[in-house]
Amino acid sequence: MASTADARFMRLALNLGARGLGRVWPNPAVGCVIVAGGRVLGRGWTQPGGRPHAETVALAQAGAAARGATAYVSLEPCNHHGLTPPCSHALVAAGIARVVVAMGDPDPRVAGRGLETLRQAGLEVVTGICADEAAELHRGFLTRIGQGRPMLTLKLASSADGRIATATGESQWITGAEARRQVHAMRARHDAVLVGAGTARADDPSLTVRGLGMSHQPVRVVLSRRLDLPLDSALMRSAGQVPVWLCHGPDAPEAARNAWDSAGARRIEVSAGPGGQLDLGQVMAGLGAAGLTRVFCEGGGMLAAGLLSADLVDELVVMQAGMVLGAEGTPAVGAMGIAALAEAPRFRLRETRDIGGDVLAIWSR
Amino acid sequence: MASTADARFMRLALNLGARGLGRVWPNPAVGCVIVAGGRVLGRGWTQPGGRPHAETVALAQAGAAARGATAYVSLEPCNHHGLTPPCSHALVAAGIARVVVAMGDPDPRVAGRGLETLRQAGLEVVTGICADEAAELHRGFLTRIGQGRPMLTLKLASSADGRIATATGESQWITGAEARRQVHAMRARHDAVLVGAGTARADDPSLTVRGLGMSHQPVRVVLSRRLDLPLDSALMRSAGQVPVWLCHGPDAPEAARNAWDSAGARRIEVSAGPGGQLDLGQVMAGLGAAGLTRVFCEGGGMLAAGLLSADLVDELVVMQAGMVLGAEGTPAVGAMGIAALAEAPRFRLRETRDIGGDVLAIWSR
Repeated sequence: MASTADARFMRLALNLGARGLGRVWPNPAVGCVIVAGGRVLGRGWTQPGGRPHAETVALAQAGAAARGATAYVSLEPCNHHGLTPPCSHALVAAGIARVVVAMGDPDPRVAGRGLETLRQAGLEVVTGICADEAAELHRGFLTRIGQGRPMLTLKLASSADGRIATATGESQWITGAEARRQVHAMRARHDAVLVGAGTARADDPSLTVRGLGMSHQPVRVVLSRRLDLPLDSALMRSAGQVPVWLCHGPDAPEAARNAWDSAGARRIEVSAGPGGQLDLGQVMAGLGAAGLTRVFCEGGGMLAAGLLSADLVDELVVMQAGMVLGAEGTPAVGAMGIAALAEAPRFRLRETRDIGGDVLAIWSR
Repeated sequence: MASTADARFMRLALNLGARGLGRVWPNPAVGCVIVAGGRVLGRGWTQPGGRPHAETVALAQAGAAARGATAYVSLEPCNHHGLTPPCSHALVAAGIARVVVAMGDPDPRVAGRGLETLRQAGLEVVTGICADEAAELHRGFLTRIGQGRPMLTLKLASSADGRIATATGESQWITGAEARRQVHAMRARHDAVLVGAGTARADDPSLTVRGLGMSHQPVRVVLSRRLDLPLDSALMRSAGQVPVWLCHGPDAPEAARNAWDSAGARRIEVSAGPGGQLDLGQVMAGLGAAGLTRVFCEGGGMLAAGLLSADLVDELVVMQAGMVLGAEGTPAVGAMGIAALAEAPRFRLRETRDIGGDVLAIWSR
C-alpha cells in the first residue's frame, strides 16, 4: 500500500540522491531514507566514487532503530556481490520491514532480483513511487545501461540571434556573470565536460568548476582526430590535477600520442566517420564504456551540429543574452545539411527563466 | 495628497487606456476613471481613430455624479482646441474636484498647460502616480513627440539557433500555434506592421490580424526602394480593404508608383542611405510624420539588421522554438558589420516565459 507520505519521503530520497550527480559514475546517484513512525532515522546518498551505496549510509545512520522501519530508495537495491555485499541483503539484515522503491534497476546484474530478494525475505515491497522523477534523476545511468553511452547535455550560450562570437572571434563575454555561474554548477552535476578541438584551441579553456567551493571536478574530454592541440594549453598543464581525456582517430601521430600520455591524459581511440571526422556515436560509446553517465558539451558549433545531427543530444541548454551580433558572427550550431523543417531535430521545453538578465531555456529530446 | 487607493484607480485607468493601443494614432491611448466615495462612476479610454478622448467618455458615463468626484487620467488632459473642446475645460465644467494624473503630456500644445488650467479653476491636482507604467503605456506617443518617429518593436521568430528558414527557404512553421496567435495579438496593439521587400516577396504575407475576432487592422508598411513588388501579391489585392503604405526611394519607376497608387496604396518617398538602401532613420521619420506611434517589424533579417544598426529598435521580441536548423539556415538578423562585442546593440530583459512550448523573451533597449 502506497500513501501520500510515501511520495513525500521518496522526494527526500531523490533530493539526497541528486547530491551525488557528477561524482558517483559509473554508479547511479541513489538516495535513501529510513523512516519509522513518520520520523526520518537515516539519510544516505551514493558517495563520491560510487561507494558506499545510499542504503549502506542510511542504514548506518539509523542503526538498531532500522528494525521494523521503512526504507525509501530511488532505485532498486543492488543484488550482486561486488566490492561490498549487496544492499538487498543489508536491508534484510537490518530488519527493515517495508521497502519503497521509485523504479527498478535495468542493470542486468540487478533487473528485479533486488526486489525478489526482499520479497522472499518477507519484506513488503512497493514500487513506482515518483517513478518519473527517479527516471530523470537516473537518466545518465539509465542511458548508459540502455544505450551504452552517457546522457548528453548540449549547452549553447549565444546572443539573441544565435551567435557565439563576433566575426573577429571575440566571445568573452556574451552572457553575464550569473549565467556563467550556472554553467559551472551544471558542469559540477555532470561526470565530464566535452569540447571540440576548435574550441580548445580558440579559447584555451580550463573547463574546471570554479567559484562554487567545490573540490570535485568533472573529467575534461576533448575531441581531436589528429591530437593536434597545443601542448602548452591550460588543459595540458593541469592534466595531472584534473583528468583530461582525448578522443582521437586512428591517424593521430605517434609523437602526439606519447606527448599526451606523458602529460597524464587518457586517450580513447575511435574510428573516423564517412566525412573523415570522428564518428560521434563511437565517441559516445567509448565514453560510456569508460564509465561516464552524464556528459556536458560546451561546443563549439561544429561539434554541436555533429551531435545534433547524430541524434545524440538528450538535453539542450540555451542561454541567450540581450545582444545582437548579426550574420557575420560565429553561429552557435554549425552546418547540419537540413533542407526541410521536418528533418530538424526537435526538443520539448522544460523550463525557461531569467538568469541575471539573460534567458535560460532547458529543452529535452 | 496621494493615497494607495490613488495607485489602484490609476492602474485601472492605465488598463483601460491600453485597450486603445494600435487604433488611436496619432493620439495617445489614454485611460480615465471618475471616482467618488471609493466607487467608480465612469470609465473611458480614447476611442478608435483617437476621438472622443478618454475623459469625455468617462465624464459622459458619470453624468451629474461627477460633481465633486476625482478623475484619474493616465496622461495630462489636453488643453488645446482641436476638433473638440479641451479635456481640461470639460473636467472643470463637470465639477470635478480633484484630478490625479500619471504623467505630464510633452506635446508642445499641452506641456503643463492642461494642469495649469485645472489648478487655476481651483481643482486639486496630483501628478506622478504610476508614472513609469504610464510612460510604458504611452511609449509610442512619447517617442513620436520626443524623437519624431514611432516606437519600434522588432520581432524575431526563430529556431533555438537563431534561424528563420532552412537553406531551401522553408519557414512555415518554426514556432507553434500559440506563438503565432501571440504575434497576431501583438500586431493588433501596434499602429502598423512593417516588413522588408524580401519578406514581402518570399512569404507573400497578408500581415493582417486574424483569429482574434478583431475588426481593427494595423496599417501594413513595406519597404521597397524600387517598388519592385509583385502586383498580384496578397498585400496588393487587399490594399483596398486594409491600408498598405510603401516606403520607397527616389529611383522608384513611375510605372510602379502609378500601379500602387491605383491599387489604393499610400506611398512615402524617402532618400537612400550611403549603401544605396533606404535611409531607415528617414523611413521612421516619414512614418512618424504620417502619424504612426507604434510600429511592429516582422523582418526579414536584412531589415532587422539595418534597424538594429541604426539604433532604431525600442523593443525586441524573440520567440524561439525547440528546433535546431544549423548554419545553412537563414539568419534571423543579417549582416551588421560588428567586430567587437562592445559595438553590439544591447537590450535589457523584461520578461521570459513559455508560450505553448516555445520560448518568448521580451527585451527593451
